[in-house]
Amino acid sequence: MNAIPPRTDEAALAARLLDAFASAGLDPAGGFTRPAWGAAESACHAILAEAGALHGLAAHADAVGNLWLAPPGLGDVPAPAAGSHLDSVPRGGNFDGAAGAVAGLILAIRAARAGLPFRAVALRGEESPWFGAPYVGTRAAFGALDATELATPRRGGGATLADCIAAVGGDPAQAGAGVPLPEILRVSAFWELHIEQGPVLIHRDLPAAAVGAVRGHLRLPAARCIGQAGHSGVVPRHLRHDPAMAVAALLMDLDDVWARQEQEGADLVVTAGVLATEADEATATRIPGEVGFALDIRSASPTTLADVERFLDARCREIGTRRGVAFDLGRAVRAAPVVLDATRAAAIADALPKPHSMPSGAGHDAAEFARRGVPAAMAFVRNANGSHNPAEAMEIPDLMAGIEAMWRAVLVVERG
Amino acid sequence: MNAIPPRTDEAALAARLLDAFASAGLDPAGGFTRPAWGAAESACHAILAEAGALHGLAAHADAVGNLWLAPPGLGDVPAPAAGSHLDSVPRGGNFDGAAGAVAGLILAIRAARAGLPFRAVALRGEESPWFGAPYVGTRAAFGALDATELATPRRGGGATLADCIAAVGGDPAQAGAGVPLPEILRVSAFWELHIEQGPVLIHRDLPAAAVGAVRGHLRLPAARCIGQAGHSGVVPRHLRHDPAMAVAALLMDLDDVWARQEQEGADLVVTAGVLATEADEATATRIPGEVGFALDIRSASPTTLADVERFLDARCREIGTRRGVAFDLGRAVRAAPVVLDATRAAAIADALPKPHSMPSGAGHDAAEFARRGVPAAMAFVRNANGSHNPAEAMEIPDLMAGIEAMWRAVLVVERG
Repeated sequence: MNAIPPRTDEAALAARLLDAFASAGLDPAGGFTRPAWGAAESACHAILAEAGALHGLAAHADAVGNLWLAPPGLGDVPAPAAGSHLDSVPRGGNFDGAAGAVAGLILAIRAARAGLPFRAVALRGEESPWFGAPYVGTRAAFGALDATELATPRRGGGATLADCIAAVGGDPAQAGAGVPLPEILRVSAFWELHIEQGPVLIHRDLPAAAVGAVRGHLRLPAARCIGQAGHSGVVPRHLRHDPAMAVAALLMDLDDVWARQEQEGADLVVTAGVLATEADEATATRIPGEVGFALDIRSASPTTLADVERFLDARCREIGTRRGVAFDLGRAVRAAPVVLDATRAAAIADALPKPHSMPSGAGHDAAEFARRGVPAAMAFVRNANGSHNPAEAMEIPDLMAGIEAMWRAVLVVERG
Repeated sequence: MNAIPPRTDEAALAARLLDAFASAGLDPAGGFTRPAWGAAESACHAILAEAGALHGLAAHADAVGNLWLAPPGLGDVPAPAAGSHLDSVPRGGNFDGAAGAVAGLILAIRAARAGLPFRAVALRGEESPWFGAPYVGTRAAFGALDATELATPRRGGGATLADCIAAVGGDPAQAGAGVPLPEILRVSAFWELHIEQGPVLIHRDLPAAAVGAVRGHLRLPAARCIGQAGHSGVVPRHLRHDPAMAVAALLMDLDDVWARQEQEGADLVVTAGVLATEADEATATRIPGEVGFALDIRSASPTTLADVERFLDARCREIGTRRGVAFDLGRAVRAAPVVLDATRAAAIADALPKPHSMPSGAGHDAAEFARRGVPAAMAFVRNANGSHNPAEAMEIPDLMAGIEAMWRAVLVVERG
């Protein structure tokens, strides 16, 4: 067993890999575009495999195109795996996913040198823009795709998901067979490092944090408030059926309950991403007849989500009655919160210079493993300007701090 | 002097005239369309002139095409006039304007029989859709149009306002000369009956009311609240710059001040006619970067308008600071409230079975006379379903009640 190499070498490797991923994904229209199962994603897989080979790791693609890196002697034994994805959203940033793939490789190199059974993995197609749904590579490996999803054409036209899997040498039939691939069944625990997509770590001046849970959501993408249009100058307050004022009242009620829940220590975020009076008829001198709106309510706690949904329904009824309008919340998209492995989360937090744990507001491959009963752990690394845009800004020292904490946690938990 | 004829004859005349106006303006696409200075409006002028002739009134068009009806012997003496307009908005209703033109004719017939100097008038082009501004016929008669307005093409393409005036036999040069036409200078007082455009009289179960004032407004057609876009799941409440929540907070503050002002007896209506997150980027899972909105704040009191504007500015600053957003209220369109003649308003109210006086939330030709120092009076007649739409619904008995009250007021005030 070799000694762990100086940390500066790893930082240089991380920087070189991220530069190479950037070159592979550079979009002439701005930012970085690495379509799922596309040429740029495959190029990044090849770059990662080559770097693994230089450190003695063998590369192997599973039947849907996910890349696994392991010491040649590890064979088929179950072991922890670390990694993330190498696709990006269209015109996205360079670090969402890629940082975790780099971390997976560095952890696997360290583990190989420490004689610890461990694999790195680059999962295909995590981002939802390409096939209209997220975590496609992970779900494909779990055999969880259906025929409809396999027949979905990739954004930008042309090849279906099945075609794309075949094009990288995979077997689309296995993705829809309802049976997990052998490679994913060998994952005894999944470790994923990811850039934080929000501003919390920057605001707290922390390089990294453990992630305790992935928030679930109640999403209402097509809610409406229906009132009665009228001349803005001639209808007194008590005779109005004004959906704009009613939606404003609902949002303020949600903002109030959010503030109260936060004061009580509950986890919650509430967003109205869309507000829209009628496209053709709305004008300054007309009481709108209808206001469309979207709500996204997220929490790491199923209880909080349920409480807020009850509150929302009650407020819609009360405001509807009081203001003479009707709320139609439309279809609801729900996802239950996912609790990540508590032991591993605590180990990551404890390994940080300033221990900090936080929920993830967005979904990740790690949550897909957790949903299927595989212990999963995540670390967030500080990142400016949010994610899914060209201005993503992660610093290599912060990445290395995250990798270091994750490595120490791996040693504590996985060597047991 | 003849006796006043039975009321039922007048009701039949009113119904026949309104039916004829409906036939002239029937729009195959639905509702009624009588463009300003267009064929349907001119046909209605001819219908009104013919009805006047049957009752001994002579018709005369002024140099911009407004129709004046008077007994042949009245000559050039100053006298009160009554009337309204005969154009409609595109696909509008049959009664907005037309009811007042009918009332003007019936009042002129009664006045002629009573030996009271009096004229009826049908004013051209009151509705703003045709040339982008309202009260065009009245302003033209006052010589108040400028060259730009005279060169404006009518909605739907083709002829300019100057062309349109010439096409009905008028002289567009006089409309822009800055000198009132002789006909309008002879109006010693202007009486206008109009359908109520709101639901107040229906709600109060009253057939008609006097109008004491025309509300002024502060209109902000293109206001914006600028925040910072972000992922809906990952930004905690205290780190957000959410323009949707900020606009909701502003609307609720305005709704609160509206309720308070009403409790204190002030006249006020507040409308947010437009709410719009970014057209291309807004989605359920994104904190909006900007929300566009429109406000229309109206009051019969200049003091109330000024108070609410100060309140609005203060709330924008406070909410901006507290929520980390910036309000840009854009251009402001202002109109001062117009107080109609108090003696005449009181006389109309007193002549009603249940006296009621209310402000008008929309502008009318009467306010243009009042702005120029001509005593002006208005009566509203009950009307279902608002105005400017095919569902306008005025009942003839209500129209006759409004005409009767106006006639009694004319006898009290104008007979001196």
